[in-house]
Amino acid sequence: MTVTTPRGFRAAGVAAGLKASGAGDIALVVNDGPDAGVAGVFTANRVKAAPVLWTQQVVRGGVVRAVVLNSGGANACTGPAGFQDTHATAEHTAAVLTASSPRLMVGAGEVAVCSTGLIGERLPMDKLLPGVRGAVRGLSRDGGHPAAEAIMTTDTRPKTTVARGSGWTVGGMAKGAGMLAPAMATMLCVLTTDAVAGPETLDAALRAATRVTFDRVDSDGCMSTNDTVLLLASGASGIEPSVAELTAAVTAACHDLAQQLVADAEGATKQIAIDVVGAADEDDAVEVGRSVARNNLVKTALFGNDPNWGRILAAVGTTTAAFEPDGVDVAVNGIWVCRGGAAAEDRAKVDLTGRDVTIRIDLHAGEAAATIWTNDLSHAYVHENSAYST
Amino acid sequence: MTVTTPRGFRAAGVAAGLKASGAGDIALVVNDGPDAGVAGVFTANRVKAAPVLWTQQVVRGGVVRAVVLNSGGANACTGPAGFQDTHATAEHTAAVLTASSPRLMVGAGEVAVCSTGLIGERLPMDKLLPGVRGAVRGLSRDGGHPAAEAIMTTDTRPKTTVARGSGWTVGGMAKGAGMLAPAMATMLCVLTTDAVAGPETLDAALRAATRVTFDRVDSDGCMSTNDTVLLLASGASGIEPSVAELTAAVTAACHDLAQQLVADAEGATKQIAIDVVGAADEDDAVEVGRSVARNNLVKTALFGNDPNWGRILAAVGTTTAAFEPDGVDVAVNGIWVCRGGAAAEDRAKVDLTGRDVTIRIDLHAGEAAATIWTNDLSHAYVHENSAYST
Repeated sequence: MTVTTPRGFRAAGVAAGLKASGAGDIALVVNDGPDAGVAGVFTANRVKAAPVLWTQQVVRGGVVRAVVLNSGGANACTGPAGFQDTHATAEHTAAVLTASSPRLMVGAGEVAVCSTGLIGERLPMDKLLPGVRGAVRGLSRDGGHPAAEAIMTTDTRPKTTVARGSGWTVGGMAKGAGMLAPAMATMLCVLTTDAVAGPETLDAALRAATRVTFDRVDSDGCMSTNDTVLLLASGASGIEPSVAELTAAVTAACHDLAQQLVADAEGATKQIAIDVVGAADEDDAVEVGRSVARNNLVKTALFGNDPNWGRILAAVGTTTAAFEPDGVDVAVNGIWVCRGGAAAEDRAKVDLTGRDVTIRIDLHAGEAAATIWTNDLSHAYVHENSAYST
Repeated sequence: MTVTTPRGFRAAGVAAGLKASGAGDIALVVNDGPDAGVAGVFTANRVKAAPVLWTQQVVRGGVVRAVVLNSGGANACTGPAGFQDTHATAEHTAAVLTASSPRLMVGAGEVAVCSTGLIGERLPMDKLLPGVRGAVRGLSRDGGHPAAEAIMTTDTRPKTTVARGSGWTVGGMAKGAGMLAPAMATMLCVLTTDAVAGPETLDAALRAATRVTFDRVDSDGCMSTNDTVLLLASGASGIEPSVAELTAAVTAACHDLAQQLVADAEGATKQIAIDVVGAADEDDAVEVGRSVARNNLVKTALFGNDPNWGRILAAVGTTTAAFEPDGVDVAVNGIWVCRGGAAAEDRAKVDLTGRDVTIRIDLHAGEAAATIWTNDLSHAYVHENSAYST
């Protein structure tokens, strides 16, 4: 039920000593083919980590035979030396993989690299490179789960998924708590498929999927330097789905992983869906949902089980979306506490004792809709992010 | 040292029972003239409270003889009935003032109204209107301090100021913790001057002053529905300063009040100045400073005494400002922990044990600069804003 579920992939997760805890910290995913197609989406942050700059080049090359991922260090804001470390990691991975099997001929330019952890410090290459050798030795068709564990940072559990097509599948693993707005460090995701798919199809499917899943998770409004989502295609099923079929499966896999990320967000006690409806267009709906998701006063109110719709309306009022202030309705867990921009049903009717919260905002300005997923702002969030250096 | 320091002003603060605590909750400031000039700036939130909509009209009329302010309720998101409550408050204030003195002839359209407190609930007019009568009875030249106390919500102390010109003064009072981004509820400010100044001069001075003071306080990125800053001019000194002289004094008064707001921000343990230098233009400097000020990961790191410059750089990277990622320097309390986008001086040298923190960001893209003031994100912020409904 992970990256090794589709045919043509092996994976491994090993402990190389990058994490002080001794837990797994290097993951490797290898595509044994016959194809080696790839698509990728990356952080929009202009301050990009060395592995992001490297992997963007690799993806442009169109062929990826392996992805090596490390936790325990982001290799961001490390200058030219940090970029050289990423390059050396790819070179080493390619060389060890090529030496490991007569079937494999891997170039460094076919190795994607992902890192997550503290920004601004060099990686301990004396531990990382031996770790890569260990990961190559450990590669197996059962390696998906240890790989998913090795990329965890503050995650409390690994995130894996699978989505099935007709004779082909999509598998995936992820870490972190957001895409455009991760709670800590970084969101990394590797998706695999044994479908046959050309580069345009892979790219179209991945962009369509991330646009309505990872891009709509907004945990704390902070964008990472390292976010990376990769989709690798082995073609091992011999079946070529349509773009629509592949998009549907990749979207299902991304949706499942995105929900797992929100559920495991740092210190969260609430998992919140913000449904914006009646918007003039989808951009308006996303802008409104994101503004509410990022509002610390809304997030702390929900942590306190307070259906404070006034704070929600104040957040809506900071957007450029089409709406009239006296024409907005707000429901919290099904109770329409605000109609026409003023108090409506009794807020005491709202039950916020559970973990799941749904906020529905009707702008009465059109027919478009979007959902943004977020979480509350808790004491534990403050604790984790003040006590833990990332 | 407050709104009654300039000649021509009386004030009062009384308890009308709007606050459950029994503390003062209605403030009144009266301009006895001879002039009754006014300028105002208001929240940019599109969801505006009834008193903001009312007072914007009043200020456009060009004459304000009294400002009545209440805590204990924002009168925001209260629909047409809420606007009628504000109107009735102004009518009542005008009538009681006119009846109180043969010298005064006040129309409702000359009474500004400001409110702060919980959004979405009607004000208890049966308490508020008698409170206004009490405030009129209590008006005095010594009433500035009780007035400043009566507008407090979660403020732990009243905020007042004075700035002196040549033969004229500017006085002021404020409550809250921000202008474009208050931490809770609302920022209200009333400034008074006995200078002689026409409407264009008052407006120019107030806009120039707030642009570089209140507008550059960003406590938690949340914009209120009620923010209001008013400048009243009595002309009682008989002296007409230049626009530059008046602007300088109003700016000094606003700067002092803004610093008091940041110092008293909810739950804050750090008072943080973000100096952005080397920017291509002032807009870039403000955008970068605001992005860092609003970043929850930066704010929690500083709460934890962690000079986490990587999070600062990641926040800079989300802006559209001109800079090269490998050309940014960052100092925390004077230690240049980041040079050229990578680690420089030892972060262990940074002393974050004090309350004041200065972050200096050099974009190396030009000559412009700006400072944004903010505070950290603490357990106490989460507690106050989850346990207290606003």
